Amino acid sequence: MNAEIIAVGTELLLGQIVNTNAQFLSLQLSQLGIDVYFQTVVGDNHNRLKDTFQHALNRSDIVIFTGGLGPTKDDLTKETIAEILALPLELHEESLQRIKGFFKSIHRQMSHNNEKQAYLPKGCTVLQNDYGTAPGCLIEKDGKIVVMLPGPPREMKPMFNNYVFPIIRSETSDIIYSKVLRIFGIGESSLEEELADIIETQSNPTIAPYAKEGEVTLRITAKCENEEEAQERIQQVEQKIRQRLGITVYGEGEESLEEVVSNLLIQKGVTIAAAESCTGGLLAEKLSRTPGISSCFNRGMITYSNESKVELLGVSQETLNQYGAVSEQTALEMAKGVRERSKVDVGISITGIAGPGGGSTEKPVGLVYVAMATEHKCWCQTLRLAGNRERIRNMTSMRALDMIRRYLIS
Amino acid sequence: MNAEIIAVGTELLLGQIVNTNAQFLSLQLSQLGIDVYFQTVVGDNHNRLKDTFQHALNRSDIVIFTGGLGPTKDDLTKETIAEILALPLELHEESLQRIKGFFKSIHRQMSHNNEKQAYLPKGCTVLQNDYGTAPGCLIEKDGKIVVMLPGPPREMKPMFNNYVFPIIRSETSDIIYSKVLRIFGIGESSLEEELADIIETQSNPTIAPYAKEGEVTLRITAKCENEEEAQERIQQVEQKIRQRLGITVYGEGEESLEEVVSNLLIQKGVTIAAAESCTGGLLAEKLSRTPGISSCFNRGMITYSNESKVELLGVSQETLNQYGAVSEQTALEMAKGVRERSKVDVGISITGIAGPGGGSTEKPVGLVYVAMATEHKCWCQTLRLAGNRERIRNMTSMRALDMIRRYLIS
Repeated sequence: MNAEIIAVGTELLLGQIVNTNAQFLSLQLSQLGIDVYFQTVVGDNHNRLKDTFQHALNRSDIVIFTGGLGPTKDDLTKETIAEILALPLELHEESLQRIKGFFKSIHRQMSHNNEKQAYLPKGCTVLQNDYGTAPGCLIEKDGKIVVMLPGPPREMKPMFNNYVFPIIRSETSDIIYSKVLRIFGIGESSLEEELADIIETQSNPTIAPYAKEGEVTLRITAKCENEEEAQERIQQVEQKIRQRLGITVYGEGEESLEEVVSNLLIQKGVTIAAAESCTGGLLAEKLSRTPGISSCFNRGMITYSNESKVELLGVSQETLNQYGAVSEQTALEMAKGVRERSKVDVGISITGIAGPGGGSTEKPVGLVYVAMATEHKCWCQTLRLAGNRERIRNMTSMRALDMIRRYLIS
Repeated sequence: MNAEIIAVGTELLLGQIVNTNAQFLSLQLSQLGIDVYFQTVVGDNHNRLKDTFQHALNRSDIVIFTGGLGPTKDDLTKETIAEILALPLELHEESLQRIKGFFKSIHRQMSHNNEKQAYLPKGCTVLQNDYGTAPGCLIEKDGKIVVMLPGPPREMKPMFNNYVFPIIRSETSDIIYSKVLRIFGIGESSLEEELADIIETQSNPTIAPYAKEGEVTLRITAKCENEEEAQERIQQVEQKIRQRLGITVYGEGEESLEEVVSNLLIQKGVTIAAAESCTGGLLAEKLSRTPGISSCFNRGMITYSNESKVELLGVSQETLNQYGAVSEQTALEMAKGVRERSKVDVGISITGIAGPGGGSTEKPVGLVYVAMATEHKCWCQTLRLAGNRERIRNMTSMRALDMIRRYLIS
């Protein structure tokens, strides 16, 4: 079965809001094994809405609308859909009472045009709105399923999960199960070449790489009759992939690199302190996003000025004079210094040129040194990054996080 | 003129990501006075992409694609569009060199399939990618404009603003000119009440408030035959609004609160140091986003642990024992301490409970103290914030930035 999502609302076409409803519904439907082939946004316009719906009916088994169920004249989703499906709108007494009750509960006078919301297509399954006034509805006609949901996410999401999901699930046989592997330290195209044979020979599960800023995710999706079979199929492919990619696979599902690193620190009880220059606190900020990190993340220092590097980290003035603030030597002394002075297990430091100014031929914008110090050793990575200040700072923080991760799991 | 936006990407249909590109482009096009009637998302599938494009060509003057320009086999936007427009793909030498240069600059080996990205439809206007590998292109054929842009927002947005916007603007008659005022420290509804009479009596320019995390933006949009007239109309309304809102108007256009504050510091040559606890470096990170800030932002300290507050900032153990780490007294000592020890003009400090854990009845999650110390005085703001850890940290950093801003312009 395939589905299509149609969001109705001029505010979307004006760019005033993002269509998060489409993402939510796509995710839910993919879990049901239903392929979403199209997402469309159309305005509150009778003709364009009509064309869009007719087009959708011709190509999709399930058509889900969000928005346009409001009380005002320009909300005409229900009227338009009912017209095309040749279903008259009838007053649904229970819904009317619910709407009246809703206004009573918030001590507001119900305006006359809210009654409009209680009129629903004849023979539809009424979907009650537990968080607002507009009821939704589900229509099954000529082998198609048409669903209308309200636009506000806080009303739409529970309505879908509680009332639509169960109905659609009961009509689907195959279930879709998917797993995401998160990878850092290899580019999308190199990764595809690395896995080319696996990706090409796989049809179920399928393997879809997706690159996003600095990292790559691999989605393994299996379509089977039951979850056990799906999980097994996925596991087999996952093993192969993990063997190929090894340590570059840092996580699964929704977990971010900073989350993985922070949780590793917490699990292993490793204390850490950071000394940052060009990233200005970005590494510390990412490390501290995870609740409970305060037990491991002792302190962070943003030593922009040379004095602060000397005062707070004990970097020697000679090193600064001889090699400069952006140098491997300074990075190493920063890492050692922050570790010793904070009395922690691991010290990490960053110094570099984020740009746009401050670059030179021998030390160009994007040159960054990331160093780590532990009880027994001290090492430094040289990064040469491209892009603007924001990207250089972000990539640096991710490379630093990955350096910590590799140390913790080694 | 009307336009249609087509985002290509299976990750969108799977609900892995939200289609923020469509919002961005819709907003830009509305500024050009172009009506966006449809936004569509379609997968990396030849036939469905073909149908979608043909359908779009029949109903829209401008069709803008995002995504599917990547190096991998499943990226086939360019190939499909070129086929329908009967334009052969030709190697664009300059783009190939740019791509090679990009990989050289990041010291990575260019994988063979990246060459694919340098093949572009014959006769198109090549749109260079300043932040990635895939060039975009603009095709004018049979009175239609077809644009292909890369999927990653950081590559797509500047490409549209710098290379596509000017071309489309030159083809539209009535120009739309708009100005955005950025406001912090007043809620959307209070702001609407404050400006109700102005907003209602205005038709050209129109005034549209929009609330986003912690701040409100006001978009003033005039539609005129020439820019001078538009600017004059806007200026008149802007004056009225600024008189009403006073100091809460912190900026214009795209400038962020952190940018405004950092630039104020740089202009006024005021040096600053920050001491953060619950925000874990977020304030420092925001302050240091602006190039050139290193001359003013001397250092930042993330003093998570009590020892670090004592050691690095000179907070007295008594204060910590008597009032606790999250208290006005501690915040004030942190601000004074970081100012004195860094020998800067202004010290700012943050201590609070970001949650989800660590709250109590008298000190609930969301309780945050932000203090400032200058040569002559020292003061503290108590914040009681709602929401999750991320929101509390972000709102805190913005309130702190606004505190600095108000001090600098007072």
